[in-house]
Amino acid sequence: MRATVMYAAGDVRVEDVPDARVVDPTDALVTVTHSAICGSDLWPYKQLEATPSGRRMGHEFIGFVEDVGGDVETLKAGDLVVAPFVWSDGTCVFCREGLHTSCLHGGRYGADGVDGGQGEAVRVPQADGTLVPLPVGKDDELMPSLLTLSDVMSTGHHAALAAEVGPGRTVAIVGDGAVGLCGVIASKRLGAERIILLGRHGDRIALARDFGATDIVEERGEEAVERVRELTDGFGAHSVLECVGHDEAIATAMLVARVGGAVGRVGVPQEGTIPEATRTFFDNVKIAGGPAPARAYIEELLPDVLEGRIEPGRVFDRVGRLDEVPDGYRAMNDREALKVLIEL
Amino acid sequence: MRATVMYAAGDVRVEDVPDARVVDPTDALVTVTHSAICGSDLWPYKQLEATPSGRRMGHEFIGFVEDVGGDVETLKAGDLVVAPFVWSDGTCVFCREGLHTSCLHGGRYGADGVDGGQGEAVRVPQADGTLVPLPVGKDDELMPSLLTLSDVMSTGHHAALAAEVGPGRTVAIVGDGAVGLCGVIASKRLGAERIILLGRHGDRIALARDFGATDIVEERGEEAVERVRELTDGFGAHSVLECVGHDEAIATAMLVARVGGAVGRVGVPQEGTIPEATRTFFDNVKIAGGPAPARAYIEELLPDVLEGRIEPGRVFDRVGRLDEVPDGYRAMNDREALKVLIEL
Repeated sequence: MRATVMYAAGDVRVEDVPDARVVDPTDALVTVTHSAICGSDLWPYKQLEATPSGRRMGHEFIGFVEDVGGDVETLKAGDLVVAPFVWSDGTCVFCREGLHTSCLHGGRYGADGVDGGQGEAVRVPQADGTLVPLPVGKDDELMPSLLTLSDVMSTGHHAALAAEVGPGRTVAIVGDGAVGLCGVIASKRLGAERIILLGRHGDRIALARDFGATDIVEERGEEAVERVRELTDGFGAHSVLECVGHDEAIATAMLVARVGGAVGRVGVPQEGTIPEATRTFFDNVKIAGGPAPARAYIEELLPDVLEGRIEPGRVFDRVGRLDEVPDGYRAMNDREALKVLIEL
Repeated sequence: MRATVMYAAGDVRVEDVPDARVVDPTDALVTVTHSAICGSDLWPYKQLEATPSGRRMGHEFIGFVEDVGGDVETLKAGDLVVAPFVWSDGTCVFCREGLHTSCLHGGRYGADGVDGGQGEAVRVPQADGTLVPLPVGKDDELMPSLLTLSDVMSTGHHAALAAEVGPGRTVAIVGDGAVGLCGVIASKRLGAERIILLGRHGDRIALARDFGATDIVEERGEEAVERVRELTDGFGAHSVLECVGHDEAIATAMLVARVGGAVGRVGVPQEGTIPEATRTFFDNVKIAGGPAPARAYIEELLPDVLEGRIEPGRVFDRVGRLDEVPDGYRAMNDREALKVLIEL
């Protein structure tokens, strides 16, 4: 079968790999119909050291169950399913607490003999715990929005929950990438009174406004902090969604938080420390978040997608075929594309 | 009057200062009956650069209202009151949210013309919002415990709330100082199932056990982390109270937190960053806390002190008079004393 393999920073190839197949009795074999390139895929695209064996890529996908192992009970061949960006058993102590990204028997796609999502098929371990059947056909116009449940929409929702977004709260969102924009959707959905997006890319800003952003701050660093404070009577935002992961963005997130506020961080941190620790201490600012347990959120978000109340699929501004994945990485890295949808 | 003034690291004097008096109409003049030396007073005691004008010290005290300004409505001369470690108006937006340490019209003792608590009398600004009358006489045997409501007991409670202590939770407390020990009391009071204290000082450990600690970890650094994990089936503690503020202690706190757990930090951070940011991110560990809004907690904790259900006053292991304050600093700094009570 064909699948995406990264060999080094900037070196992404689509090539022949061994066919995916059921190995363990808890596996499902899924034929991918839709996949995506994630902002987090750009970290290795910028930094990966040469890896002769290559790294299988992709962790967001929808597809048809083709085959299941003998222990799989809830899925059958022909089911159209969406996969959260990690697999998990759904039964361990952490899964039962809704922390599926820490599943004791879970793991990531593209590692340890598990396929990546940017390919023709994927062996999905712990299929019963992982995959969520979709009550639509594969050509449904909602497919892009449904695909965001794999990661970006669930991640925006996680950021908003970690930042304690709710009615009456002022929200600041650091980052206008796909996750930041989904953070706007999630904040609006959770009843935020005011949603300030920190970003500077024209198309993304327009989309953010459509999604419910009430204010845009195009400044960066100290000026951005000052501007958010101006917009909030000098106080800052109750809830801050950190959707970047760079040290400067994290510092900005900490500095725009109101006394007693909460920062939900979902941008993968690129440094080993959290800046502005003294300020957040003296202002009793909470810091929460991490990888989103997408599996915990899909059932909650699914009806809103199916009934058209949220349209996170609009973050996809480019559609390509599998062979166009390498150019998709380039386009996202060059900020030519916000997020690339792959149709198989 | 006589009061404590610090001129440089290690240079604490009790000397004559201008008499405290009512200045603003919202002031109360309080004659101090009981004061204390705080672990946080040891930071300047170790580090303060020479300050020719000196710094007035102390922020924990009980005393009698001697005089009040014309706008003070809830207090009268003769009331015995306990003072939280900052003063606050009780009416601003932050006070109404229980964040009195961030009061828009509040401040600290020993600064800006306000007296310190380690002296014969204190001008307390925003007296109506700040002071809490006590329904006992000044010679009551509960006085040491009541005095801890000023700071250490309220701070231990704040750490426990920030760390989301509750029934069924396993708690780890980093630091066996007075705040850490009050954190044990607070955790037990909030229903923690298991309370692990990280500390290595014999007397303090004995007291911690009396207060409800179920396990003691005397190791430090990586070994301490390993030991806490051994005690918790490899998972770590749901709730971690960081009661030190040193980088190593903060790192330990982050590393002993369970997936999805919460760290309540109340040790004043000595570095500008929070360590172990990647680990806490991937494990969805929350980080909360800061200076305790003692004023928000005193009414809640007071009945438990009055009825003897908690005995935080036992953290005082030395009692001295005002002239003995300099030696009290030395004794606490040398770890000869855990916490010094000053009787006036």
